[in-house]
Amino acid sequence: MVIDAMTEQECAALLTRVSLGRLGCSFDDQPYVVPISFAYEPGYIYALSTFGQKIEWMRQNPKVCLEVEEAASESEWITVIATGTYQELTEPQYSAELAHARKILGKRRNWWQIPLAERQAAGEDLVSPLFFRIHIDSITGLRASH
Amino acid sequence: MVIDAMTEQECAALLTRVSLGRLGCSFDDQPYVVPISFAYEPGYIYALSTFGQKIEWMRQNPKVCLEVEEAASESEWITVIATGTYQELTEPQYSAELAHARKILGKRRNWWQIPLAERQAAGEDLVSPLFFRIHIDSITGLRASH
Repeated sequence: MVIDAMTEQECAALLTRVSLGRLGCSFDDQPYVVPISFAYEPGYIYALSTFGQKIEWMRQNPKVCLEVEEAASESEWITVIATGTYQELTEPQYSAELAHARKILGKRRNWWQIPLAERQAAGEDLVSPLFFRIHIDSITGLRASH
Repeated sequence: MVIDAMTEQECAALLTRVSLGRLGCSFDDQPYVVPISFAYEPGYIYALSTFGQKIEWMRQNPKVCLEVEEAASESEWITVIATGTYQELTEPQYSAELAHARKILGKRRNWWQIPLAERQAAGEDLVSPLFFRIHIDSITGLRASH
């Protein structure tokens, strides 16, 4: 098995193709990693969530990380790690970006189920999801092959 | 789709069954998430790595997080999040634990390929892997079903 670094273009292609990743945030030096459904556009990752621990933490510390994988076998896989800054898409500052996020995330089937179901599991009333984006600061990727 | 919290026993069963997860560490408030192969035993997660960013960061901030998933479909999946403390298994303090880690991780096919290949990708000479474990502080899990 050989592992090579991926080009930025190859990393962007994976982020375009795959819509499930893991979001890492951190507060008071405690990291926290959760699965997340997202939509990528050059420079940004768009996602949504109901209010909870990760939103609370990202409001206090906007530095975040997104990890995405695609594996054909144990020895043929690619993984991309993007680091960036959390931006909550609130009115009126981000009206245009919020409309854009609703549009591109709305194209995905079941995009709204995970965060709302999480909230239901917590026994709380349904609330509107919060939309946010990650302004990407860096992207790196590794490819394993025979 | 309904999402329920998993029992501690169900979380432990997933960590026993699955050996690939994502390790989150953090330094200076910047989270970092990477795929990792691991072996679970009650109270601990065992893994290995060559020296690099994640080891450097975990030595400075031992608070870590491990996320593991298993999905049958978009609406049938389970995910477990464990938080805990990084312990590097160095001689002589952790001789017994180090021997134990080598034994249980050695049972896994290809367990050594990922970290060593990563190091090769970085163009460095091969070096011995470092073994570590995570002392688990908390485990939570969610199950989505129809």
